Amino acid sequence: MNTKHQKISVAVDVLLFTITDDKLQIVLTKRSAEPFRDMYCLPGVSLRENETPEEAAERSLKERTGLNDIYLEQLYTFGDVDRDPRSRTISIAYYALTDPEKLLSSKLTEPAILVPADKISNGRIKLAFDHKKIVEYGRMRLRGKVSYSDIAFEFVPEDFTLPQLQKVYEILLGEELYKANFRKMISPRVEETGEMLTGMAHRPSRLYRKKSRQD
Amino acid sequence: MNTKHQKISVAVDVLLFTITDDKLQIVLTKRSAEPFRDMYCLPGVSLRENETPEEAAERSLKERTGLNDIYLEQLYTFGDVDRDPRSRTISIAYYALTDPEKLLSSKLTEPAILVPADKISNGRIKLAFDHKKIVEYGRMRLRGKVSYSDIAFEFVPEDFTLPQLQKVYEILLGEELYKANFRKMISPRVEETGEMLTGMAHRPSRLYRKKSRQD
Repeated sequence: MNTKHQKISVAVDVLLFTITDDKLQIVLTKRSAEPFRDMYCLPGVSLRENETPEEAAERSLKERTGLNDIYLEQLYTFGDVDRDPRSRTISIAYYALTDPEKLLSSKLTEPAILVPADKISNGRIKLAFDHKKIVEYGRMRLRGKVSYSDIAFEFVPEDFTLPQLQKVYEILLGEELYKANFRKMISPRVEETGEMLTGMAHRPSRLYRKKSRQD
Repeated sequence: MNTKHQKISVAVDVLLFTITDDKLQIVLTKRSAEPFRDMYCLPGVSLRENETPEEAAERSLKERTGLNDIYLEQLYTFGDVDRDPRSRTISIAYYALTDPEKLLSSKLTEPAILVPADKISNGRIKLAFDHKKIVEYGRMRLRGKVSYSDIAFEFVPEDFTLPQLQKVYEILLGEELYKANFRKMISPRVEETGEMLTGMAHRPSRLYRKKSRQD
């Protein structure tokens, strides 16, 4: 535990996922300085002495997106020796989830943008540092977690239709689901609000909400 | 990403689990210096500039237990502001798993000892820093992971009997399992070696091994 000769910087980076246009999307920002000047990267901050990593992640989110009070969880700590050309820096990565309405009613602070996760995975958008690795790791975690947790509900508004929720599951899992199977799986976890979603473009649909855990 | 004023130390701590005497056990070491002098804690090292967190975890394991090449995975990064009274220190915690034979054929380096995890959970053994929190988090991860992964196999030798493996599942899950249900669940994942375990104390039992993944 001798820490005398240690010169390691600690960054906290945030992978904010949302779903719009039937695609998993990620918030990126643009670097204004070297290294990797003008390249996109995940929003991040340097961990301050008087804050926890989680508080730093919240600060980063708040600064870039105006969002707070959304789902936030530690993802992994990335520590390759050469991941930052300036100095030894580890990154404690967090991932956050939000439904798009919340994100759009908030404001992305320039130069933050929303890009489809697939464009990072397929290399169309290149990221600074090892941030592509962080994105891939986060997508993997999301895929794994969707099947054993209620994480998918974070991507829909409080009241939602079942087709809306099914679409979220399909996007997160990367595969189409049979409607009957999906409904069977999801029915113990949702309840009708009694309201209908109406609109010009579709038939009225029943609205549902997530059942609270005590049920 | 301004890192100029940052004074944060990075520790890497390792939670090594094994099972002996039908109990989940953890390797602890004793602190020789203040703070928390003479209290038990998890084996840990200070992250060096030229090593990854995983390499630091391997170094710590090797130093304290002589073990290498065992299951090792990052658990979580703990970063409460006051977790170390000396200076701001975050801990990247790893957990490692080994079957007891490997651990016993190796050597615990003084003052490392093996203690039942329950004695930490129930407060009989008090740990330095926030290491109790790390232990609880690790146990939770282990319990969660045992149901959707092959992690339980790490606690048995290469060749094992089914009652041996069932016991491991029961200890990790904290509940007794019906033999018939366990066998049904496990049978696609194991295969007979063709050998028998013989001994004075019990009837001969068939030996099994884990099926390789391509099956």
